[in-house]
Amino acid sequence: MYRTHTCGELTLNEAGKAVTLAGWVQRVRNLGGMTFVDLRDRYGITQLLIDEKASSELKAETAALGREFVVQVVGRVVERAAKNPKLPTGEIEISVNKIKVLNAAELPPFTIEDETDGGDELRMKFRYLDLRRNPLRKAMELRHKMAYEVRTYMNNEKFLEIETPYLIKSTPEGARDFIVPSRINAGQFYALPQSPQTFKQILMVGGYDRYFQIVRCFRDEDLRADRQPEFTQIDCEMAFVEREDVLQTFEGLAKHLFDAVLGVKFEGDFPRITYAEAMKYYGCDKPDIRFDMRIGELTEAAKGKGFGLFDSAEYIGAISAPNCSEYTRKQLDELSEWVKRPQIGAKALVYIKVGDELKSSVDKFYSVAELQNFVEITGAKKGDLLLILAGAKKQTLSALSALRLEMGARLNLRTEGVFKPLWVVDFPLFEYDEPTQRFYAMHHPFTSPNPDQIDLFYSSRKEDLEQVCANAYDFVINGVEIGGGSIRIHDSKQQRRMFEILGFTPEAAEEQFGFIINAFRYGAPPHGGIAFGFDRWCATFGGSESIRDYIAFPKNNAGRDVMIDSPAPVGEEQLRELSIKINKEEKID
Amino acid sequence: MYRTHTCGELTLNEAGKAVTLAGWVQRVRNLGGMTFVDLRDRYGITQLLIDEKASSELKAETAALGREFVVQVVGRVVERAAKNPKLPTGEIEISVNKIKVLNAAELPPFTIEDETDGGDELRMKFRYLDLRRNPLRKAMELRHKMAYEVRTYMNNEKFLEIETPYLIKSTPEGARDFIVPSRINAGQFYALPQSPQTFKQILMVGGYDRYFQIVRCFRDEDLRADRQPEFTQIDCEMAFVEREDVLQTFEGLAKHLFDAVLGVKFEGDFPRITYAEAMKYYGCDKPDIRFDMRIGELTEAAKGKGFGLFDSAEYIGAISAPNCSEYTRKQLDELSEWVKRPQIGAKALVYIKVGDELKSSVDKFYSVAELQNFVEITGAKKGDLLLILAGAKKQTLSALSALRLEMGARLNLRTEGVFKPLWVVDFPLFEYDEPTQRFYAMHHPFTSPNPDQIDLFYSSRKEDLEQVCANAYDFVINGVEIGGGSIRIHDSKQQRRMFEILGFTPEAAEEQFGFIINAFRYGAPPHGGIAFGFDRWCATFGGSESIRDYIAFPKNNAGRDVMIDSPAPVGEEQLRELSIKINKEEKID
Repeated sequence: MYRTHTCGELTLNEAGKAVTLAGWVQRVRNLGGMTFVDLRDRYGITQLLIDEKASSELKAETAALGREFVVQVVGRVVERAAKNPKLPTGEIEISVNKIKVLNAAELPPFTIEDETDGGDELRMKFRYLDLRRNPLRKAMELRHKMAYEVRTYMNNEKFLEIETPYLIKSTPEGARDFIVPSRINAGQFYALPQSPQTFKQILMVGGYDRYFQIVRCFRDEDLRADRQPEFTQIDCEMAFVEREDVLQTFEGLAKHLFDAVLGVKFEGDFPRITYAEAMKYYGCDKPDIRFDMRIGELTEAAKGKGFGLFDSAEYIGAISAPNCSEYTRKQLDELSEWVKRPQIGAKALVYIKVGDELKSSVDKFYSVAELQNFVEITGAKKGDLLLILAGAKKQTLSALSALRLEMGARLNLRTEGVFKPLWVVDFPLFEYDEPTQRFYAMHHPFTSPNPDQIDLFYSSRKEDLEQVCANAYDFVINGVEIGGGSIRIHDSKQQRRMFEILGFTPEAAEEQFGFIINAFRYGAPPHGGIAFGFDRWCATFGGSESIRDYIAFPKNNAGRDVMIDSPAPVGEEQLRELSIKINKEEKID
Repeated sequence: MYRTHTCGELTLNEAGKAVTLAGWVQRVRNLGGMTFVDLRDRYGITQLLIDEKASSELKAETAALGREFVVQVVGRVVERAAKNPKLPTGEIEISVNKIKVLNAAELPPFTIEDETDGGDELRMKFRYLDLRRNPLRKAMELRHKMAYEVRTYMNNEKFLEIETPYLIKSTPEGARDFIVPSRINAGQFYALPQSPQTFKQILMVGGYDRYFQIVRCFRDEDLRADRQPEFTQIDCEMAFVEREDVLQTFEGLAKHLFDAVLGVKFEGDFPRITYAEAMKYYGCDKPDIRFDMRIGELTEAAKGKGFGLFDSAEYIGAISAPNCSEYTRKQLDELSEWVKRPQIGAKALVYIKVGDELKSSVDKFYSVAELQNFVEITGAKKGDLLLILAGAKKQTLSALSALRLEMGARLNLRTEGVFKPLWVVDFPLFEYDEPTQRFYAMHHPFTSPNPDQIDLFYSSRKEDLEQVCANAYDFVINGVEIGGGSIRIHDSKQQRRMFEILGFTPEAAEEQFGFIINAFRYGAPPHGGIAFGFDRWCATFGGSESIRDYIAFPKNNAGRDVMIDSPAPVGEEQLRELSIKINKEEKID
């Protein structure tokens, strides 16, 4: 037996007890006669004391200890002279009789502290050392707890966790697949799943009623800051349900997780807003509603008064930043530069200071009454600063959304530890693509239209089809899209109509979706589901914007695992067995 | 709302209630005036009654129903005239007012019954229909329950479930990897993990102490009947442990699963036997100990008496089949043919009938006293039949093992529903390969030697090294290897010695295992672990020898998923993006 206790559990209750501990040397403080060692394991830190009366052998052994050495110590629990109220073990220390080095350690390339001196790449390369730091340990513990509580809730709700295959088939639609050459079937390939979408629908056809899975998904995309080629989803599907059943069930899941993991309780239902409202009031489909600062539209009120920027704009909108009416010229200039950055892309920032009187950068174009009207439309209060953007509608709303989030952050309105979940519903079913003159499915071609818009769905007018909403929903927390799903089409007539709208001939539909269309012929129940981004949900609960710290072994932005140095070349013989070779021609991009 | 109740929950308690049910039409029985319909969902079957007084419309709708139609019915719960005590819902039926067909169904290609008329390939192709049958539904439910209870136990024992990556790096040792071409890193490949072995050891270096994961693993092997290219493991690792800690922890897991899933309780510890004992008494390293019938060795007692088969044999062994002394000539001939089959490969079967007197096929070579000695060595009792095989030791023990299992099966000693778990310990650390004149690791090169054989481990004599046992263990239930693991080497001197014995130069070891050897330099704790074959454990608990029914979407023996028709060719453009092409040369096998 290597230890009688962990480094996180001894208190005054065990005073006087002989104990054996094992762990890593966090730090050694030699105070002349006596030496203190902080011994660390996953559970905490316990202070070791090697005092003046210790044998010279023990003293020499202590002197030889280095940071991150793995040691086993035998000693007695004693009350500390100087207690540390911040540590659960802070009232005691171990008066050591014996130290055994289980393994020496080279000096780590960065400090194993909450705030480390190691850069990103170095910490990725030595991930096993980074994982020893408290923030990462806590992230892994949070993730474990999240997964465990997801399963507790889902099991209680009679969901079955069913594993779907990872070696499946490539489909030409959607994002790029990772593919896997088959050795036994030369010239053929498996694909890694982008999601178990088809399989979960197949399970509904198979009568499984309530399915879920915490499952890895793979997408060969060009990586952005917060994307990973492999990521984890909580994938769920239910049969014999309408939208309300799905929302109730998963609002229950979210409430369970908030309570069990964070101790946060919610009264009443989560708010629901439509996609149209979200775009109108927040300029985006995943609003952070921890703060209000809604967008007010000024297009009608502000056009035609001779101010060129506004007169030529498709859309004019504003937000009202609370208590900012005293912003200086310098502050306003800086904000003006901020909205003009290419990532935001606004042409100019127009403001109105709502003080005892209204002061504006466009005083000469608008009367006080007109400006007062702007203030009323946006609901600004005295002391607020009205920030107005104008231009093409889509871009301007997007810029207003970014400006709103930025002002929310500057004004500390996006409070850490406050969680505001909401459902966004009634997404458009289709997106019309002008260049190709065709409709695309916003979600996927099995998403059903809203049940009260079936007439529009069968209309042949483009304008009607553009109005059709999907029976789909997104789950958002604090401006982060955590999950999304839909009620699926189970009626073959609707499915045929859907393919027709999307421009598939019956043959092309059969070619691409034949297998699931076939399955649906044998008695498909009405069904719908949702999938949550598990990495992102963990990060959001952990108060982080980046998912990387919530994945034990993430890849970098080039899709590389720098710890194991992967991907890597493989041997010629291995490729020959798989009947493939490297194509050394230049790639045409 | 599609239903007020499931098809498995209504009893006399709900008599008189108006209910709405939804499900699949299992069967329709038209008894002239009235029609009975069995409505099925995941939870059970409820009988529907459309009686004589029903509207002609309802009668016509009922007449139009086909097998596996998806319907919604509204009606009232009434007491049945003829109750069915076998069904939980057998006391009631639904007097139907309204039937709505939610989806029609084509006639399924095989019957959705416990005993179906569909062949293997057909059922694989229409897996979604096969999954509707009770045996598969129960298998999926068992698997869900197993996974859930594994997590319950592990969570209580403070194990963290940590997800390790699926896109890792190919290693030349061991079984073949599946590889995944990287698009962004042209000419380079990821590999799918054969197990998270390296990552779980890395997590121990990272201080995670108690790790587990229910995780998919991939092996590109030539498939045998009960192998799958992707399979699921319960993967576990612990730090600061010795063998006893690991065995106690996972014996606890097994007992928890036996109790929670099967309601089977065990008193006391599971038996442990050494590899040497297992080979000696059962002829194999995963004995089925539901029955005794141990092998007795007769080599010394039977050699040198002029019987050529025995005199020339390296080894002679016997089992004693209880109550078989009355076997007829025909039965004995048939058994003799059975052991001579190529799969078993024995040269001949010698028997002794232990009746009032001893009757043997080798009477003329052995005196009654000598035969009596054989009987005593094997512990045969009156009424038993002694079955003797002779030849090369390894092959003969293997044949005796097969014969023992066969006799156990014929005599109904391998009782279904009886579970006899055991630990097999002290496996050899090395295997000497004569052709290449070198030692191979039986397990893997990080497996530590038994702590009391360290001297032998450092010996330079081949005979000494052959005696060294691994600090490894297998978990066996009813003759099926469910799991295995070992205490790992954490001492760099031992690791160097291990590589030396295995014939790696320091450079070659660095080349192949550099990344983990490096990690070990920064403070590796003593650690060890185990991995369980989850598919196999589920099948064993379900009383099945095949894992295929315990996997929702298995592949066939050619590694194909015949339901989705995968693997499949992919487009030229997709290959070009990945910088690979198909190698059309003949494969050299």
